Amino acid sequence: MRIVYLNGDYVPKSAAKVSVFDRGLLFSDAVYEVISVINGHLIDMERHVTRLERSLGELSITAFADWPAIARTLVAENGLQEGLVYLQVSRGVMDDRDYRWPAPDTPPTIFAFAQQRVLVENPMAATGMRVLTRPDLRWQRCDIKTTQLLYASLMKMEAVAAGVDDVWMTRDDLVTEGTSQNAHIISRDGVLISHQLDRAILPGVTRIETLDQAKALGLSVEERAFSVDEAKDAAEAFISSSTLLVMPVVEIDGHKIGDGKPGEYTRKIRQSYLAAVQRASCTTA
Amino acid sequence: MRIVYLNGDYVPKSAAKVSVFDRGLLFSDAVYEVISVINGHLIDMERHVTRLERSLGELSITAFADWPAIARTLVAENGLQEGLVYLQVSRGVMDDRDYRWPAPDTPPTIFAFAQQRVLVENPMAATGMRVLTRPDLRWQRCDIKTTQLLYASLMKMEAVAAGVDDVWMTRDDLVTEGTSQNAHIISRDGVLISHQLDRAILPGVTRIETLDQAKALGLSVEERAFSVDEAKDAAEAFISSSTLLVMPVVEIDGHKIGDGKPGEYTRKIRQSYLAAVQRASCTTA
Repeated sequence: MRIVYLNGDYVPKSAAKVSVFDRGLLFSDAVYEVISVINGHLIDMERHVTRLERSLGELSITAFADWPAIARTLVAENGLQEGLVYLQVSRGVMDDRDYRWPAPDTPPTIFAFAQQRVLVENPMAATGMRVLTRPDLRWQRCDIKTTQLLYASLMKMEAVAAGVDDVWMTRDDLVTEGTSQNAHIISRDGVLISHQLDRAILPGVTRIETLDQAKALGLSVEERAFSVDEAKDAAEAFISSSTLLVMPVVEIDGHKIGDGKPGEYTRKIRQSYLAAVQRASCTTA
Repeated sequence: MRIVYLNGDYVPKSAAKVSVFDRGLLFSDAVYEVISVINGHLIDMERHVTRLERSLGELSITAFADWPAIARTLVAENGLQEGLVYLQVSRGVMDDRDYRWPAPDTPPTIFAFAQQRVLVENPMAATGMRVLTRPDLRWQRCDIKTTQLLYASLMKMEAVAAGVDDVWMTRDDLVTEGTSQNAHIISRDGVLISHQLDRAILPGVTRIETLDQAKALGLSVEERAFSVDEAKDAAEAFISSSTLLVMPVVEIDGHKIGDGKPGEYTRKIRQSYLAAVQRASCTTA
């Protein structure tokens, strides 16, 4: 039986329900994190907590919990070996619907669940992803990890309809990010280019480690936006995310990147990322 | 006891709960309507249904229900004389969290509730509203009435913190709309100016009747965006919404509009709107 965390309790999935007056449901007044689980271990939990606290701070939502303990308990209760833990915090339940926030002592709604998923042996790592580009019509605070994911979901479905894997979104013809991944390219002269951290993209947890691994492999790193044309002309392209880890991109708008196969540097970054994750999961509880 | 509609049943508020795997909660994959109730009668129900169906269509959410019957039952069960009925439809509950939509036969989650509120005798009609202007950072499909209301809620709280009533949002210095109202001005030469219907604003139900009443009063109507400066220089400013109906705006960014009192045309439009509503509520069931 799947066990879900809800406001202090661990309950069966069928009992994990929130009021229709929850602000997460009525106003998307909620933030979340997705933490990957490999070999039963939570990856980069500390950085996810730091980002969650930043998201909460940006929205002035007050919520305290032992986030790692909740995540660990869900992993244990659900016998999860590989997959993810999802954690969401909303501003809580109102008596009446109102754009104004409820009293500051209103308890937030906190829930979390575990979900199985193949991460390490994802077959896509061998074939690479194909992406389309589409205008980024999302709100302009994408640095906050809110549940306002409707546009990302619509774009995912555009990709599915077109028979490809994802969409890279663009503002003024510059790539911001994928529907739930940070986007990176490696130029023909060996420079990894990745959008700077600003309000246009999510500060990815996996992005940090990815850039570190690239530097360790001798690549120089430029944090700036790149155009669609620059991406099409790159030697390699790839994405990073908590659940896809590091994943090659081999086609953009039908145009092959490099020779149309996963790039060599991308393969090495994924390998060294996985090696670092394995080491970490052996030394942490 | 407050009665809430949830997926075919009328239940006590405390029992009106949805799964944490609902797409409304996880992806803001949901649309809504707010229908005002005056003298126990639903105002403009047919136009709200039309708009709801358009919103559902834009997101390819399939949901059928006798919306007017649900709203009427809530009004009756809760003994509502004046206020609103809120109605929300999401794409339904997933087994696992996924950006991709669940199978097309997944039932949508539909809930609705009634809420008391003073509409006709709102004291703000006598004093007028004061607003701030702020950049419109929302997504670029504001014509779809989705629950992605976080930015509007944040702006409402900026207004509260500044001791004023609301925010008018701007793109490229042109006013789009208020946090949950359409914005209008009347120029010194007697032209009502109201943002054209496009993806930047919600096609307000009350806006339609408002423009009709203005024409009946002899005003000419221009549907186009206006600048903040143009608004400050206007003879009158006001908003329309289902729950504020027609409401004067007397101050923008600390600058008085006209003589700083509710405008004469605005007062007349509100009066004729209310008269039309009263007539309609006497002739419909």
